Amino acid sequence: MLSGMHEHDGPLTRLRRSHEQTVLELLRKHGPLSRAELGARSGLSRTTLHDIVAGLGSSGAVVASTPHVEVRKRGRPVEKLSLNPAAGEAVGIDFARRAVHVAAVNFAHEVIGSESEAHSADLSWPERVDIAQRLLATLATGASENPGDGGRRERPGTVHLDALSAIGVGVVGPITDPGSENAHAQGIDGLPDLLRKRFGVPVLLDNNTRLAALAEAVWGAAADSSDVLYLRLSHGVGGGLVVGGALHRGRYGLSGEFGHVTVDPAGRPCECGGNGCLETRASLDAVLFRYREAGGRADGFAGFLDAAAAGEPSALGVLERVGHDVGGVLAAVCHAVGPGVIVVGGELAETGPALLEPVERALRQQLMPLARHHVDVRRATLGEAGSALGAIALVLHESPLLSHYPQPVSEENA
Amino acid sequence: MLSGMHEHDGPLTRLRRSHEQTVLELLRKHGPLSRAELGARSGLSRTTLHDIVAGLGSSGAVVASTPHVEVRKRGRPVEKLSLNPAAGEAVGIDFARRAVHVAAVNFAHEVIGSESEAHSADLSWPERVDIAQRLLATLATGASENPGDGGRRERPGTVHLDALSAIGVGVVGPITDPGSENAHAQGIDGLPDLLRKRFGVPVLLDNNTRLAALAEAVWGAAADSSDVLYLRLSHGVGGGLVVGGALHRGRYGLSGEFGHVTVDPAGRPCECGGNGCLETRASLDAVLFRYREAGGRADGFAGFLDAAAAGEPSALGVLERVGHDVGGVLAAVCHAVGPGVIVVGGELAETGPALLEPVERALRQQLMPLARHHVDVRRATLGEAGSALGAIALVLHESPLLSHYPQPVSEENA
Repeated sequence: MLSGMHEHDGPLTRLRRSHEQTVLELLRKHGPLSRAELGARSGLSRTTLHDIVAGLGSSGAVVASTPHVEVRKRGRPVEKLSLNPAAGEAVGIDFARRAVHVAAVNFAHEVIGSESEAHSADLSWPERVDIAQRLLATLATGASENPGDGGRRERPGTVHLDALSAIGVGVVGPITDPGSENAHAQGIDGLPDLLRKRFGVPVLLDNNTRLAALAEAVWGAAADSSDVLYLRLSHGVGGGLVVGGALHRGRYGLSGEFGHVTVDPAGRPCECGGNGCLETRASLDAVLFRYREAGGRADGFAGFLDAAAAGEPSALGVLERVGHDVGGVLAAVCHAVGPGVIVVGGELAETGPALLEPVERALRQQLMPLARHHVDVRRATLGEAGSALGAIALVLHESPLLSHYPQPVSEENA
Repeated sequence: MLSGMHEHDGPLTRLRRSHEQTVLELLRKHGPLSRAELGARSGLSRTTLHDIVAGLGSSGAVVASTPHVEVRKRGRPVEKLSLNPAAGEAVGIDFARRAVHVAAVNFAHEVIGSESEAHSADLSWPERVDIAQRLLATLATGASENPGDGGRRERPGTVHLDALSAIGVGVVGPITDPGSENAHAQGIDGLPDLLRKRFGVPVLLDNNTRLAALAEAVWGAAADSSDVLYLRLSHGVGGGLVVGGALHRGRYGLSGEFGHVTVDPAGRPCECGGNGCLETRASLDAVLFRYREAGGRADGFAGFLDAAAAGEPSALGVLERVGHDVGGVLAAVCHAVGPGVIVVGGELAETGPALLEPVERALRQQLMPLARHHVDVRRATLGEAGSALGAIALVLHESPLLSHYPQPVSEENA
């Protein structure tokens, strides 16, 4: 059994527990790691690490696996260690403007699944939390039909909320004190308390667009990169930065506000109070406005998507100009922060190359030549579950979880 | 005596050493800290911390002091703990285009002094390193006349290079693998080896403008903030970001390149290969060019400074327009990274409010209202020594120093 440190433990036991916690913390944060990676990140010697990993393995907390045959290079495949996927799940909830999204991930960093439900914009918080609970239950039922490598479940069909140490939550809008239990955003009064009462665990809260950025860097289009710029083109335009593998927030939680970078100081007024912001040119409404100005006739955003897919010149022309505006803003941000990967998400990204090619052209034109080949532009892969997955990553990365680390499922305590 | 961990130490000794190293590491990185701050950052209990600090105090490694009376608030003054200033110095060298700057700081984070010497642009690396060595010797002579709180020196008048564990070095231009011993920049072939041979210690290298950013965040205009945007307006235009107290570098060491953000895609060609970059509008040459276009007649940059100080309309008009360009770029970057403080340095900042007021006006005009009152604009305070001081901060923050931590000066080993 694993547990926190106790005052009455002897020094040897405490030292060993401290090493165990280091290893568990690394696997929780980074997912599967080889012994060499664990050694480099933990600073433990080969001998000590061998001993600690053996102990964690026999208690069932840590499991070893080798990657699938297709990714093996020559020589012996490298064994990866991870937390036991049956040891517990982490869940995330995204309270978007008109929908609730939930996702669950096991402790080996494998996505179990995600669910969504749309609702009207004026739904109360207790009703939204009801939806979240119902979706989580659905998810657990689905997951239990395919329980992976044989973790025993006493009550298949329910999420093991008793094994959770925290829930990650995404909400709309700027957040003060993001990522903490004291996080707050306009209009969410009562939500953190409500969630704490329903689930009985701490609630970590952050902006849902920023969480989508973290999710793309952990499980999505930029899973191979630790310096990621994520841009979401939706009803609003926003994004997030991942720096050295960690979510970047800025001094007042006001980072990633790419939608409010000025494109034309003489441009249209923006909801933020500024003028000519990127959001006034690249939000879904702005794109439809520009499309109608250009003589386009298709109805609504779905019609616009169809028109673009059919190669209608007015739709493609608008995407060309939107892409130019977006690429210019991305170039400015790239010079400042130097990301390795840019991920573009949100509904507008569904237009694919018709948008992304003009984005890349404008980006490369305005990037200093030295930087031009140092950044990849990719379409987001996680879709509407992104923010809920990011909320899980928040818990895995940032919650002070190990002092009450869930007990591994083993013969003794199953 | 302090030393690294040894395999034959008992577990209690090892645990204690590990706690000691934690405390020393925190004081090395952050400078003076109160017991409460040390407790919060180390995670050690009050009792354990008291015990560890007492041991480090009696060995002479750590000293206590109370702040000067003028900064005391009501109630008892809070005692700060720091590394013994006599325990050693850290030095930094900045190899600028046409000058060598050096600085030295003691282990209590107090600046001992800095020195500079100009040279021609084509001077060889061995000759520049000679200058650096000579300047460091000068600095030590000056410092030894005022040895602070009585640290004993066997050979006053020389820098204690034997007490150094690494030297921080700033160079011009983009760096691959910045901050590490493998760092490299164009044109510096042989420099790291040369320095290692001369000083016999590891050499940590980074871009000198980025190091100036770190220095302003540690000792300069933004010493109270951990999220800082530094912009340098000089022969070139560049800068750096400090994020959560640490230097931000970007995936390929290409961050902080604010000078190459496009202001006008149809503008003048830039040395970087782009067009209309901020550097083509706000470098010293660009400012003089705009000044002459506006009918200004003063000679050289010194003449321009005098003209601006005398309130000459053509000089002030140029600074107004340059400030507008600079403020627009800063606003874009602020939306992306959300700094708490913007520091403006370089020769052009010597024009003071004539530049900074237009910068602030444009910045606040283009910042989303929510962010407008969340960022301070300040003039850099460290001057030409900034990058050398930043090189020291690089060593204090990032060198794996404690395994060969210098022995404190005490009766036993003095």
